[in-house]
Amino acid sequence: MRIVDIIEKKRDGNSLTEEEINFFVEGYTKGDVPDYQASALAMAIYFQDMDEREKAAITKAMMYSGDTIDLSEIEGIKVDKHSTGGVGDTTTLILAPLVASVGVPVAKMSGRGLGHTGGTVDKMEAVPGFHVEIEKQQFVDLVNNNGLAVMGQSENLTPADKKLYSLRDVTGTVNSIPLIASSIMSKKLAAGADSIVLDVKTGSGAFMKSLEDSKALAEAMVHIGKELGRQTTAVISDMNQPLGYMVGNALEVKEAAYTLRGDGPTDLTELCLTLGSHMVVLAEKAKTTDEARKMLEDAIKSGAAMEKFEQFLDAQGGDSSVIRDLNRLPVAEHTIEVTASKDGYVSEIVADEIGTAAMMLGAGRATKDSEIDLAVGIELKKKIGDAVKKGEPLAIMHANNKDINNVSERIIDAFKISSEAVESPTLVYDTFSS
Amino acid sequence: MRIVDIIEKKRDGNSLTEEEINFFVEGYTKGDVPDYQASALAMAIYFQDMDEREKAAITKAMMYSGDTIDLSEIEGIKVDKHSTGGVGDTTTLILAPLVASVGVPVAKMSGRGLGHTGGTVDKMEAVPGFHVEIEKQQFVDLVNNNGLAVMGQSENLTPADKKLYSLRDVTGTVNSIPLIASSIMSKKLAAGADSIVLDVKTGSGAFMKSLEDSKALAEAMVHIGKELGRQTTAVISDMNQPLGYMVGNALEVKEAAYTLRGDGPTDLTELCLTLGSHMVVLAEKAKTTDEARKMLEDAIKSGAAMEKFEQFLDAQGGDSSVIRDLNRLPVAEHTIEVTASKDGYVSEIVADEIGTAAMMLGAGRATKDSEIDLAVGIELKKKIGDAVKKGEPLAIMHANNKDINNVSERIIDAFKISSEAVESPTLVYDTFSS
Repeated sequence: MRIVDIIEKKRDGNSLTEEEINFFVEGYTKGDVPDYQASALAMAIYFQDMDEREKAAITKAMMYSGDTIDLSEIEGIKVDKHSTGGVGDTTTLILAPLVASVGVPVAKMSGRGLGHTGGTVDKMEAVPGFHVEIEKQQFVDLVNNNGLAVMGQSENLTPADKKLYSLRDVTGTVNSIPLIASSIMSKKLAAGADSIVLDVKTGSGAFMKSLEDSKALAEAMVHIGKELGRQTTAVISDMNQPLGYMVGNALEVKEAAYTLRGDGPTDLTELCLTLGSHMVVLAEKAKTTDEARKMLEDAIKSGAAMEKFEQFLDAQGGDSSVIRDLNRLPVAEHTIEVTASKDGYVSEIVADEIGTAAMMLGAGRATKDSEIDLAVGIELKKKIGDAVKKGEPLAIMHANNKDINNVSERIIDAFKISSEAVESPTLVYDTFSS
Repeated sequence: MRIVDIIEKKRDGNSLTEEEINFFVEGYTKGDVPDYQASALAMAIYFQDMDEREKAAITKAMMYSGDTIDLSEIEGIKVDKHSTGGVGDTTTLILAPLVASVGVPVAKMSGRGLGHTGGTVDKMEAVPGFHVEIEKQQFVDLVNNNGLAVMGQSENLTPADKKLYSLRDVTGTVNSIPLIASSIMSKKLAAGADSIVLDVKTGSGAFMKSLEDSKALAEAMVHIGKELGRQTTAVISDMNQPLGYMVGNALEVKEAAYTLRGDGPTDLTELCLTLGSHMVVLAEKAKTTDEARKMLEDAIKSGAAMEKFEQFLDAQGGDSSVIRDLNRLPVAEHTIEVTASKDGYVSEIVADEIGTAAMMLGAGRATKDSEIDLAVGIELKKKIGDAVKKGEPLAIMHANNKDINNVSERIIDAFKISSEAVESPTLVYDTFSS
């Protein structure tokens, strides 16, 4: 088998066999297939797409390119959740304790990653003492006893995906549905999930800007799950503005706590209940999403969800008292208002721009070695549809540096103000299940 | 400027600016742009094509990526000829002395190259003593005095093209019209041609199998020539069977000599007269191709063409007496007939297969370091349209090895015999001029 023949076959619009896909993925992981052939193949896939069988095959090949985590020692159906990424997306922080509190075992591997804010692990480190450096056995025991644990991600999880993703990032081949779908699904499958709930973001702040592309990605992932024997549900949710009000690390932990105790923003709460319901159903703890939703609402009302959050933080070395007294979370030195320059209605909040502004304040990592400032970030005061008067605050910057003119300009530009009334956007557009 | 943005721009079907193309070609030549980005861009170009302006820009950038040859010391309009390659294509050997004999200055740089047979330089080395290792000044003087010289190709001619071509070869991006056209034209322009005649082959033995693709390539090259201020004429000629009867190095020299003295095969003679006429017109030695053709026919009849060939070989150390006594050219030890297995008419001679058979005998190079056997090759005895009887020879193998069963089988397979009469194919399909 020669890789150039495989490239030409795909280039000409033909389907690759499982053997050909394995030859590529294994060869690329080992370094036998050079980057320049992998990037040419990725571009050919970008143009010619892959059919369902090919997508399943490349996912499987990447899943088995490194370690796979065996969670069979954990009782029950392990449901993992993945978001395709957006701005102010605090859902993981909320969903993990929320669904665990109704009996869904949550055994999560989480990483740091680059982006506007830190990854889930970074965010949780805003809680003093909390850490994810635990052994596999302790992880299993914690899930079996408490129903919830988070472990740092294995270095050798889906190395093929890591390598291919870095390459795609610099060769214009990121935006390919089969490659995105297989990248996400291979990681979730290697991390041992029995069932998967996917939150596919759509809109100006999402990776997939159009509803059509978002649906295609959702369907592709649900099909892959089905082919590989994993129950998968994908929800298409809005990212035409940041989710909730907080963008930052400690700020998002605060918002997660609000939400878990029933005081969260409407959109964030609603999305967590939607995604959570699907997780509860896939874990077979409820028959219908309505029943599941009722269980989750009850867990918030009764305080069970909040208790689970505290138990989880304590079990992994965290000082959960900060969750009861949120003022003890890291706080930035300065809070500076960004105000509206005219009267009107908020018609758009370009989420990417808000995310970049948060990163400029120090909330995220531009490169692997950047340090994150857990305290800083952006607190929105208005969302799409809200009326605003000239001089009223649109957002508050939480900063540790006074030189933030660029940041405030970027936030002002991100807010579009219309003279006519605007409706707030749909939150959940569609749901796909295998 | 970032190469990834350039890749994405092309991927999305936009035209690249001259600055962007220069950034890529210069960066790739220097090694600042890695192979994996170049191959992704090549694949994007494969799918999205390039417009006329882009094709001219990439040709120019590759032309200037290394040395360019200044032929201004040579009087007259220097016309170069290029063939997109086929099997048994002896035209260069014939055309150089033929057009020189009517006053067209021929200042040719020639390389060795890989393929079914050697390059023009290899072929001419069948003439004892002949060599192309001459200095630039001697080259210029020879053309000014004799009207014809051939010099070995500069190592640093179009390094961008060399590098990109090797990459395309292993990444499924060879077959892209803008990349083929710019590769050919950049070399011709860097080698100092004022005007260019292109022989674009079409058919089963050509790089471009369909007439449509061949025309597109011809038009692309003619446009590039026009954009860069070089008169260019492209002729589309048939490669549904090998050209002439000989495939090999010494064998082709022999056939060139036959043709120059007026005893050549009809198709080879006709194509040389066609291409030669365009060269004479572009060199402004005749007003019309009819007038030019008459001049060339006269040069063959009068012996002037043959005399020019001998003068040229002598001037570069060759023993031109072998051209008058062709039996003194290298001869293979064995000649073995390949015979027809049934009566009928030759309907196809798969040229690629004949070429590969010649290479198996040792006539060509598979890798840069292979040795060429100048004596071996294949002599066709039948061409398309010829009637053949069972047991009659289809071809003769000239071999230095008796173990040639594989080769003879390949030749037999290459000949398709039909029970119905077959017309011989069109030789020249179309002509494009700038």
